[in-house]
Amino acid sequence: MEGSASLTPAGEELHARFSVNYSYAVHFTRDVLDPENPILARTVIADHGSVVLPVLDGGMLTCHPTLPERLEAYAQRHPDCLRLAGPPIVLPGGELVKEGTRHVEAILAAVNERAVDRHSYVLAIGGGAFLDVAGYATAVAHRGIRLIRMPTTVLAQNDAGIGVKNGLNAYGKKNFLGTFAPPSAVIDDELFLTTLCDRDWRAGTSEAIKVALLKDAAFFAELEELAPAVGERDLDAMGTLIRRCTELHLSHIAGAGDPFEMGSARPLDFGHWSAHKLEQLSGLRLRHGEAVAIGIALDATYAHLAGMLPAAEWRRVLALLEAFDLSLLAPELDDPRLLDGLAEFREHLGGRLTVVLVQAIGASVEVHEIDRALMRRAIRELRAAAVGAEALHEGSPPAMVEATQG
Amino acid sequence: MEGSASLTPAGEELHARFSVNYSYAVHFTRDVLDPENPILARTVIADHGSVVLPVLDGGMLTCHPTLPERLEAYAQRHPDCLRLAGPPIVLPGGELVKEGTRHVEAILAAVNERAVDRHSYVLAIGGGAFLDVAGYATAVAHRGIRLIRMPTTVLAQNDAGIGVKNGLNAYGKKNFLGTFAPPSAVIDDELFLTTLCDRDWRAGTSEAIKVALLKDAAFFAELEELAPAVGERDLDAMGTLIRRCTELHLSHIAGAGDPFEMGSARPLDFGHWSAHKLEQLSGLRLRHGEAVAIGIALDATYAHLAGMLPAAEWRRVLALLEAFDLSLLAPELDDPRLLDGLAEFREHLGGRLTVVLVQAIGASVEVHEIDRALMRRAIRELRAAAVGAEALHEGSPPAMVEATQG
Repeated sequence: MEGSASLTPAGEELHARFSVNYSYAVHFTRDVLDPENPILARTVIADHGSVVLPVLDGGMLTCHPTLPERLEAYAQRHPDCLRLAGPPIVLPGGELVKEGTRHVEAILAAVNERAVDRHSYVLAIGGGAFLDVAGYATAVAHRGIRLIRMPTTVLAQNDAGIGVKNGLNAYGKKNFLGTFAPPSAVIDDELFLTTLCDRDWRAGTSEAIKVALLKDAAFFAELEELAPAVGERDLDAMGTLIRRCTELHLSHIAGAGDPFEMGSARPLDFGHWSAHKLEQLSGLRLRHGEAVAIGIALDATYAHLAGMLPAAEWRRVLALLEAFDLSLLAPELDDPRLLDGLAEFREHLGGRLTVVLVQAIGASVEVHEIDRALMRRAIRELRAAAVGAEALHEGSPPAMVEATQG
Repeated sequence: MEGSASLTPAGEELHARFSVNYSYAVHFTRDVLDPENPILARTVIADHGSVVLPVLDGGMLTCHPTLPERLEAYAQRHPDCLRLAGPPIVLPGGELVKEGTRHVEAILAAVNERAVDRHSYVLAIGGGAFLDVAGYATAVAHRGIRLIRMPTTVLAQNDAGIGVKNGLNAYGKKNFLGTFAPPSAVIDDELFLTTLCDRDWRAGTSEAIKVALLKDAAFFAELEELAPAVGERDLDAMGTLIRRCTELHLSHIAGAGDPFEMGSARPLDFGHWSAHKLEQLSGLRLRHGEAVAIGIALDATYAHLAGMLPAAEWRRVLALLEAFDLSLLAPELDDPRLLDGLAEFREHLGGRLTVVLVQAIGASVEVHEIDRALMRRAIRELRAAAVGAEALHEGSPPAMVEATQG
């Protein structure tokens, strides 16, 4: 991080102009806590740090109950590189961890009691919602402690775990509180994916489909090839999906010109105005990735009806979502409050309504108006188009309880 | 704000590298709320904003009770440029506003209820501690709303109002919570300074003396010239002091290479390890500017005893503080807990202890060790050197209650 200077007195004004440089790596590995795996130790020491406060997702822990002991053993194997600041802080996983500030305060209290400073690290291991909370606490303590994220779900490895945002829900609004705070490093360990339930395994793929649809027709075609293997829980196929999604995601953050989203555009939030609202209307029955899949299907259908997206490409979008066993429908699509999601989306971004749509696979376009009557027609059209595939899902209602990892 | 791209897959890693550009102006004016004064209206509209949530320091309001009506009249005169998001939120002024999150929550609730978005502004008018709180709330709402600061005290115009930090106190630690968040603009209105009590008028000059001592021998000499006029509350003399202090401050932020303080150095925090501790030990009887004056005197004395700062220059430092009627002593200098301030200072910065000292007027140097026995000797030496001037202050104990602004 460096600054560059410019200060020009202009009459009765003085100006400050400077840049802040950010850099971080996303590492891909298997069994990061194997004492012989050097990645975590190298990541800490490369930055002249050493003290590490572990913060863990309780949902993840149920599948990896020996993780605290393995982390301890890892630290003992690398005493010159990292020293744990006491036992882990454990928070619940899932979207509810983002409600209120109670869990943030648990992390802050540990930062205070254990004298974790700005050159120390928080090591956060868990799912996307959990990482949002750990990231927020880390960003506001001492004006920013270093953060190493280990995202443990497909969704987190494809999205929340690799970006520059954190967030808490407040006043009934998703991510009402948050900051932009790039991590020091991200480490993806594929072993965590092996213990995901099928529902979480597939839900996380929707963010990769979204990125391919917006930015990369070749990746979209590759996903069409990968779908059967991913459906059989092939770890290599999923690894390919996650790496390419990460690459496109980082390329967007680093290359699209507005990493901290000061403009009105939010080019990666395709399908998200409805996804956020569907999650909320479902009382969190729908997971974020599941809601995003429906949001993608809906906005692709709208783009098709609006004459932007040709029919053949629209059908490929729906087919790819279905090939990844993602449901295209939810009862909440018929809730009249769904379209309030557009106003809430605008308010969260600020400025003018800006929704990203697609005019071809791999080619996005921004629009500033959504025709509500046409959107309602898109809902009906989506239902008609999806009804065949949807019959497969009727037997397993999405509300059913499954063992799940954060 | 722009980004630049670099993404290089290196084996099993991907890297994101980008820059975020910041720019803001500090405007100097008189009577900013005169309906014919264009600065506030121009500042808002230049950024394509319009909605402005006013947040006011209650201490300031007691001296400027018509400010809410004047702000309303200003908005009515510039309807195409700014629209107030309802009546002002009023918080207490002074350091106590930084304790706990109650006051931050008052701002956040208004942001929510009044649909203030990321392209809207919070207009915060008040003293330094108040601005720290308003800045924190503004930085975490919707991941950052735009902020216009109007610092209303000498101290705030010289320091907290013009920089890139905000903060709240927690766990008994100053600024335990906070972020780095540059403002959209800063507007200094000299009219606010006319209603300050003498104590606040003079206390705020210590930060300017500090900056001159560290960075600019010519400014230090200019301050020696200005002192008598400032003592007679000459607004032009104070304006000269504030402009040059601001210029050096912004130049440091923009030009010293680490605006968000990722390194261990904190080159502007001369005298602050003891100042923070003195404030705390005095139960906030000492104001920040008063504590900084004592901190400057103490560390200058230490630098002299350590053989760094020649005797003649050391005496000029003490003499300048005294010329601005700043006390060099406080009973808390003898509290054995004072030296704990060094460890707390290190913990807040993180990494290695780094204290800035001076080897000449206008020439600073960093050290990584402080000899505690020598520091205790510096306290005795300072007491001996200051005792003559200090007699002047004995008659007016600093604990006395004065009408004060924010």
